Amino acid sequence: MATPGTVHEALAELELVDHHCHGAVAADLAAGEFASLLTEGEARPGVSPFDSPVGLAVRRHCAPLLDLPRHAPPADYLDRRTALGWREVNRRFLRAARAGVFLVDTGYAPHPLTSPAELAEAAGATAHEVVRLEPVAEAVAARGVEPDAYAAAFRTAAEEAVRRPDVVAVKSVAAYRTGFALDPARPTDAEVTGAARRWLAGGGRLADPVLVRHLLWTAVDLGLPLQLHTGFGDADLRLHHADPALLTDWLRLVSGTVPVLLLHCWPYHRQAAYLAAVFERVYLDVGLALHHTGPARCRAVLEEALEITPFRKLLYSSDAYGVAEFHHLGALCFRQGLADLLQARVDADEVSLPDALRIAAWTGRDNARRLYGPPVSGDAPARDPGTRPTRKV
Amino acid sequence: MATPGTVHEALAELELVDHHCHGAVAADLAAGEFASLLTEGEARPGVSPFDSPVGLAVRRHCAPLLDLPRHAPPADYLDRRTALGWREVNRRFLRAARAGVFLVDTGYAPHPLTSPAELAEAAGATAHEVVRLEPVAEAVAARGVEPDAYAAAFRTAAEEAVRRPDVVAVKSVAAYRTGFALDPARPTDAEVTGAARRWLAGGGRLADPVLVRHLLWTAVDLGLPLQLHTGFGDADLRLHHADPALLTDWLRLVSGTVPVLLLHCWPYHRQAAYLAAVFERVYLDVGLALHHTGPARCRAVLEEALEITPFRKLLYSSDAYGVAEFHHLGALCFRQGLADLLQARVDADEVSLPDALRIAAWTGRDNARRLYGPPVSGDAPARDPGTRPTRKV
Amino acid sequence: MATPGTVHEALAELELVDHHCHGAVAADLAAGEFASLLTEGEARPGVSPFDSPVGLAVRRHCAPLLDLPRHAPPADYLDRRTALGWREVNRRFLRAARAGVFLVDTGYAPHPLTSPAELAEAAGATAHEVVRLEPVAEAVAARGVEPDAYAAAFRTAAEEAVRRPDVVAVKSVAAYRTGFALDPARPTDAEVTGAARRWLAGGGRLADPVLVRHLLWTAVDLGLPLQLHTGFGDADLRLHHADPALLTDWLRLVSGTVPVLLLHCWPYHRQAAYLAAVFERVYLDVGLALHHTGPARCRAVLEEALEITPFRKLLYSSDAYGVAEFHHLGALCFRQGLADLLQARVDADEVSLPDALRIAAWTGRDNARRLYGPPVSGDAPARDPGTRPTRKV
Repeated sequence: MATPGTVHEALAELELVDHHCHGAVAADLAAGEFASLLTEGEARPGVSPFDSPVGLAVRRHCAPLLDLPRHAPPADYLDRRTALGWREVNRRFLRAARAGVFLVDTGYAPHPLTSPAELAEAAGATAHEVVRLEPVAEAVAARGVEPDAYAAAFRTAAEEAVRRPDVVAVKSVAAYRTGFALDPARPTDAEVTGAARRWLAGGGRLADPVLVRHLLWTAVDLGLPLQLHTGFGDADLRLHHADPALLTDWLRLVSGTVPVLLLHCWPYHRQAAYLAAVFERVYLDVGLALHHTGPARCRAVLEEALEITPFRKLLYSSDAYGVAEFHHLGALCFRQGLADLLQARVDADEVSLPDALRIAAWTGRDNARRLYGPPVSGDAPARDPGTRPTRKV
Repeated sequence: MATPGTVHEALAELELVDHHCHGAVAADLAAGEFASLLTEGEARPGVSPFDSPVGLAVRRHCAPLLDLPRHAPPADYLDRRTALGWREVNRRFLRAARAGVFLVDTGYAPHPLTSPAELAEAAGATAHEVVRLEPVAEAVAARGVEPDAYAAAFRTAAEEAVRRPDVVAVKSVAAYRTGFALDPARPTDAEVTGAARRWLAGGGRLADPVLVRHLLWTAVDLGLPLQLHTGFGDADLRLHHADPALLTDWLRLVSGTVPVLLLHCWPYHRQAAYLAAVFERVYLDVGLALHHTGPARCRAVLEEALEITPFRKLLYSSDAYGVAEFHHLGALCFRQGLADLLQARVDADEVSLPDALRIAAWTGRDNARRLYGPPVSGDAPARDPGTRPTRKV
Repeated sequence: MATPGTVHEALAELELVDHHCHGAVAADLAAGEFASLLTEGEARPGVSPFDSPVGLAVRRHCAPLLDLPRHAPPADYLDRRTALGWREVNRRFLRAARAGVFLVDTGYAPHPLTSPAELAEAAGATAHEVVRLEPVAEAVAARGVEPDAYAAAFRTAAEEAVRRPDVVAVKSVAAYRTGFALDPARPTDAEVTGAARRWLAGGGRLADPVLVRHLLWTAVDLGLPLQLHTGFGDADLRLHHADPALLTDWLRLVSGTVPVLLLHCWPYHRQAAYLAAVFERVYLDVGLALHHTGPARCRAVLEEALEITPFRKLLYSSDAYGVAEFHHLGALCFRQGLADLLQARVDADEVSLPDALRIAAWTGRDNARRLYGPPVSGDAPARDPGTRPTRKV
């Protein structure tokens, strides 16, 4: 229990905005399926994914929510999870997260996932959608399009995708496709047509450097906040190509247009902090790293992420995917890590308590409200999508 | 108050050598001007630069020196600063830094800054000059020079610039111009002439890779310690191009000639520590990061910087620019962070107190005295600039 | 003394497997020779290598084993070392390490070093050999070989080298020769012949990118665990080319064949942790960094290395070379750093004591036993080298 009047209490009571997550699986999971969702990595025959920092965190902090003792053995955990059924499990963890708002990336769903509305209902919260742009482009290609019509067709499809009333942001996984060591300039029409010709002839996922650049620039044109995967992810990544510092020249070109949100960032969170400190509309979070490093290390990661970061530039996200344990653990790690960090500074008289409480509310909720605006902030009438302005944040 | 007989007391009493800083603005600052000097970043409409780690540090540790309570609100801080006037403000902070010597980079002055002599007088200290070489080259170009005469003209101008009696070092901001992913070899005369031809025809600041290499090699020829900006800086940088590890091949080539001082380094301070550990005449500091991370994190940064660094290889600098708060905060953070680090090791019996005191004195003062020699060390007669030897450090 | 029933006690009693080290010098060392072995760096006239984190650690933790007081002065230390003689010094430190098994890289020996058998006898332990492949290739070249026969000759020589009964792994120092920014694909026969022609004509050490790739792929074919130097090393390195993240594409190609062990890794241990977390058969250690950062920082390095690393993926190594102080210090730092880390998590109820004890045993001993199999594990009959299977770990 958090001591009253402290940063811990304030963060315990704060309704977070989880500005980047995914759905939870809407089905019962076999033991092997659950185990594979615990890790970003490949299966290891004979090795339990519970034998990892996140596995310990699940047994310590999730087991009690399933009526099990702390540190319950994996087999007990899996049995109890099955006995309760996925609906109840999701409900318990999503409510335990105590987020008021979830922004849900709907563009990655190898499993049957809860929709944003289903996630919201299970959590007793609201949810909005983040449109991942690579699948939009790939759907355009799958429908068939002439190379010289690709650019316009993608733009139209993207505009249509974000016109849905619950869409509050777009996202790119360029980090996975080409990495960020790209020519920062907007490609010419001729370049896009040439690249589209090669891609449409060859098929496969969108991974052409020209088309990825084109996607990023089209994202900017959409006028919505742009989320970018950076740093830590699964085995499909070249980690060093996802260092956000590689985006510097591009960020300089787009500075002042849309907010750019650097997601995850670990182990390049100091590089992300530099970018957030020097570019007006660049933000960061350490989602995914929070629950994977677990309560034992999330404070340390937050300490590094906040070393030079202006306090209006850090946001909270869980980047939870698949198992609702992660929606809960992300929130728990963020609250605990940030509260430990801030309370220690209050105790050392390095920051006043009112300032610490303000920083907690900003990073956990208000920065996201301000940046995504209505409907996340809840304080404005419905938007008119036809006249969506480029919002200055 | 530091407890007598401890590392904290020793560092509190030590007259530091701030081996890399800039002048303080010699004029009253409007609120917006002060705010913009607080950050390395772009202005953010509606967001106060006080809402950052360095902003908290100013309110906590600088406000009392202006007779305000700790954590004074920004508006009160700015009012009081204005009421006191810039001379008094500078005097208070510069004296609070308790540095015996300031080495002042005079080559960057978008604001009207105190000269080294004015800084010294306000601080009650001595000051010497560090000559930034890029403006020297740009002045040669501005005066007009034939391409094939550029190399000699630059060398002559640089030699002349360092002949002034108070000059103790040279500096390059190659990190900002091209970054360090350069061919390490000394360019040929023909290469320099060709590059000079292009640059002199096109104008602009010195950012040609061949000419930047030529500048670095000319710097070595001057025989003075060479300061290099690395890592953290403003929005004009590509951070990953300023990773000092990129200098490895060049450092190997120049090893044993002049001392090379890697400035700032964060977040690549471990890479800098490696270079300092393996190359005879490579040194580092974590200036700029000290006050930007603030007292809450400067110990952590110093812990990392000192992980493998030989104790004769770390120096103190503030890299303060513009506001004298930073000359004070840099010194405060260094003293406090290093004392916390060393005292904890004494308490754990990992280092003896005499050894800890020696390390404190080395890093805060003596390494700089030894490396820059007279007149910084104060223990030698005036140099004869005509016969300046390459000093072995 | 470790408190009974705690993680510290368990780690104090654990017989480690030091899965990567070198021999100790089998001769008395002059003061300058000992000093030069204390550092990875160049000599610094007038500066003692004892004035470094590892130097403090030697004076604090090694002096008592030579019957000297803690923090003994360097001169006393060197005198006592000489008085005892190298055999006794080696014996004391190697026994103090309390490793049950040492895996010894025998391919780097600018000094007269103890053989694995001599090391084992002095330590009262067992030792096995790790075959460094670059010298095997260089011996093939030195014996004379036609370019188009090089590939087969190297393979034969490597197969022969690992057929010796005590060989349990191979190692590559590709990090030193080309770095890891290599084409990941297996080179064609024609490419290897062409590259061999150039190398055999020109001489020198193996540093051709095609031949280094060929060496790595040949290593995979051998079917033994493959150790790779990454990160921290001596002045012969380009540190940023030794970032293990650069190996990603190659690791993806070889995933599931042989275990790949990323050695040292600092300051890229988080990158290595990512690779270990996502690739089935990738492992890491933080050898070399343990004694060079010393007891004051080895916990911090281990904390970072374990942030996301599955607990079956971290191993212990000292990477000690030349002075047996390092075999001892590596073990001491590992035990102390890991015990502090785990006990703190037990105390915070983030991990149960039985789980913490299991993690300690895994990382300190059992992961290596499992991975290297017999004869390291001691629980299997002698292998038949002719039918060595590719072991799944």
